[in-house]
Amino acid sequence: MKKNRPLILITNDDGISAPGLRALISVMAELGEIVVVAPDTPQSAMGHAITINSTLYLNKISKDNDPFLEYSCSGTPVDCVKLAVNEILKRKPDLCVSGVNHGSNSSINVIYSGTMSAAVEAGIEGIPAIGFSLLDYDWNADFDTIKSFIRKISVEVLQNGLPDGVVLNVNFPKLKEEDIKGIRISRQAKAIWVEKFDKRKTPQGRDYYWLAGEFVNQDKGEDTDEWVLENGFVSVVPVQFDLTAHHAIQQLNTWKWNE
Amino acid sequence: MKKNRPLILITNDDGISAPGLRALISVMAELGEIVVVAPDTPQSAMGHAITINSTLYLNKISKDNDPFLEYSCSGTPVDCVKLAVNEILKRKPDLCVSGVNHGSNSSINVIYSGTMSAAVEAGIEGIPAIGFSLLDYDWNADFDTIKSFIRKISVEVLQNGLPDGVVLNVNFPKLKEEDIKGIRISRQAKAIWVEKFDKRKTPQGRDYYWLAGEFVNQDKGEDTDEWVLENGFVSVVPVQFDLTAHHAIQQLNTWKWNE
Repeated sequence: MKKNRPLILITNDDGISAPGLRALISVMAELGEIVVVAPDTPQSAMGHAITINSTLYLNKISKDNDPFLEYSCSGTPVDCVKLAVNEILKRKPDLCVSGVNHGSNSSINVIYSGTMSAAVEAGIEGIPAIGFSLLDYDWNADFDTIKSFIRKISVEVLQNGLPDGVVLNVNFPKLKEEDIKGIRISRQAKAIWVEKFDKRKTPQGRDYYWLAGEFVNQDKGEDTDEWVLENGFVSVVPVQFDLTAHHAIQQLNTWKWNE
Repeated sequence: MKKNRPLILITNDDGISAPGLRALISVMAELGEIVVVAPDTPQSAMGHAITINSTLYLNKISKDNDPFLEYSCSGTPVDCVKLAVNEILKRKPDLCVSGVNHGSNSSINVIYSGTMSAAVEAGIEGIPAIGFSLLDYDWNADFDTIKSFIRKISVEVLQNGLPDGVVLNVNFPKLKEEDIKGIRISRQAKAIWVEKFDKRKTPQGRDYYWLAGEFVNQDKGEDTDEWVLENGFVSVVPVQFDLTAHHAIQQLNTWKWNE
């Protein structure tokens, strides 16, 4: 860890008032100087959306005597990171943490997740970054049970940095602290959501839909995030933003593209 | 290609009225039975956002005697794919094409792109999928110059399928047809957007921001999408939605996670 206190940017996708964010703040305040920039409204499932056709507002929430800077932002989680880095922070932070999300971002959920997209955006900007999620959708979930793990993982990343182009997707099982078996590096399980739209009618008789669905995991691997979580471990998946399927390039080059 | 006419789902992120979508429809109508489900408003830069806290509307645009089904949707590009597959189409389509986007989705743009997220969503659902983008932001861009390439690439995918877990990100240079040198399989260049927010004041005196930025490519590789496009080729990048940085797992396993 650096001699000076590290600078830590904190964001999330459940919004500035979420208990999961407050839990993350309480851990990070012990590790460094913190700045919070979080959405002013819930932004779950926003993926890597950014605001380009509308204006963005920043509201300073903290007062002059408060121990840290805190802002709410009218945009998405990714907007929060961009605004923090470019308009608020005086230097590049040593760490960006996002969450703690109220609910899972394991497996394919990583791709829909605003929490993880904020961490990925920080990674794109060259900042070591971690997204934290707890497998409990309850607004009043117990985040105290996972604080020691959040601290441990964050200290490791502050000390070691992260491999180039990699951010961490950390998911916690819904267990008491003493029942969590440890931390496991894992891979994204090949699972999907099988959608079942809920079709209804407005009072005026117009059809509308609610997106609903069932999570289906057909990946039986014992090295997946789903297996690790089901078996009582904290899952840490290294996530990359080079989306190139390098393994497919050779095969595609055998096709007759230019004949 | 199957004996029956293939079923092709068409979507985009610039919205149902975009000329790029019309260009794509005109090519696909020659290749199979088509169904169009596109956002009712522009959804650029929506990434992989889905609508979970709000209702979704579908509007049937086509009339009974029209040659194909066409719907507009109140949601994001990913919502369009989910609704099409689950509520409109009677069977899984043989191909999903998204675009043609008005502007580049090469390099890191793939991660912000609604066009590509729609294709990725189709890929997640097991449908061979291609996102098409033209490096011309003009609403009245000339899409005729690229139609023969769109046709060629789509026919290849209909004939061969795609490797498991892979979708194609196709970008076209802004060139006349005769000046395009051919098709190249490439990889996502390591480039980023360097943001410069434009800070303004509302008539009431409140600060607000417009997201602006400059695209900076420091990746000099001649196998990148950026190089290929600058040198007059069509870029085809195989894109995956397993975000696991598999190469980083071994290194992370050397850390002292459980001590």
